[in-house]
Amino acid sequence: MSATRHEIPPRSGTAFTLDKGDRLTVIDPCGEQVADLLAFARADLDEVISSGRTLDYASRIYLTTGDPIYSNRSNVLLRIVEDTVGRHDFLLTPCSADTFRIIYGDAQPHRGCFGNLAAALEPYGIGPDRIPVAFNVFMNVTVNGETGALSVEPPLSRAGDRITFEAETDLVIGLTACSALQSNNGSFKPIAYEITRAG
Amino acid sequence: MSATRHEIPPRSGTAFTLDKGDRLTVIDPCGEQVADLLAFARADLDEVISSGRTLDYASRIYLTTGDPIYSNRSNVLLRIVEDTVGRHDFLLTPCSADTFRIIYGDAQPHRGCFGNLAAALEPYGIGPDRIPVAFNVFMNVTVNGETGALSVEPPLSRAGDRITFEAETDLVIGLTACSALQSNNGSFKPIAYEITRAG
Repeated sequence: MSATRHEIPPRSGTAFTLDKGDRLTVIDPCGEQVADLLAFARADLDEVISSGRTLDYASRIYLTTGDPIYSNRSNVLLRIVEDTVGRHDFLLTPCSADTFRIIYGDAQPHRGCFGNLAAALEPYGIGPDRIPVAFNVFMNVTVNGETGALSVEPPLSRAGDRITFEAETDLVIGLTACSALQSNNGSFKPIAYEITRAG
Repeated sequence: MSATRHEIPPRSGTAFTLDKGDRLTVIDPCGEQVADLLAFARADLDEVISSGRTLDYASRIYLTTGDPIYSNRSNVLLRIVEDTVGRHDFLLTPCSADTFRIIYGDAQPHRGCFGNLAAALEPYGIGPDRIPVAFNVFMNVTVNGETGALSVEPPLSRAGDRITFEAETDLVIGLTACSALQSNNGSFKPIAYEITRAG
């Protein structure tokens, strides 16, 4: 088993493949940064992670070590096998030009994690309309149980914190260093990741 | 303006079109029943309601009168214009054969709202992989803000309660009388709906 470390520059994204049994570790190198993660089944790219299925089966909105991430077809695509933070979001879609226009009022908005994921996934034949709610690693979204109010709070991750996923089938992964100020407490930072190949 | 009333039998679903400006009222005829609602833009069926976009822009998980329902492309597809209940779910995917297998342990599971929606939408050229998190009318899902635990509680709707949506563009709608015992406090019931045409 060998691990290779990569870095995603601030406000950018990447895509790569994992084979069944490979492990992906997402690392917050500076602390308080978010990485939007998507996974598509290589056998049929119409199969993709599903927040609605996963949260229904978990009966929890916060996932951590041991929890499976299900697809829209109710198959497990990824499983969390290690997690030093325990607070990630699976409610919100990747930030986009529309996010920055609607929430931040930007006149010339950045393409956001959505645009970065769409660009990174395009060579794999995955179009922007296929991008669902992402698993937002280290994103700290609180819910007020009484009012239902959502609040995007600074991530609980500190420098060096990490989460490791194991691929339960062959996957295409999309991964970003988040582009939204609200998500990462006001400063854009990189995200690091390591892939440990099973084979 | 004329309204036509329809009934969806227990554990079944239907699909129909709305034109821009039409209003759809979903009525709980018996109380404590759930209706899973989907909306696709007729101009391009790859545009569909998005829980992640909608909840992000609302900063709330509970939507009610005045709230827009956004698409995956950040356009408003529907707007809630009247609501006598104020508690609906937009976190969970439609119940399916897999739901009944995984959560209820059924050996020969019903096809659920997912199967009913897939069958009803098929004549419109919408495949099952295009079904996202539904807007689950009257579904009462609570979130524990501390632990993140989700709980499916009996709907707050009583007989005759209703919610009205206005179409902000031409739509294909999928709508069910929910098939999951957990969602409707243990008994399968019909759902009624009325369409008021703008033209």
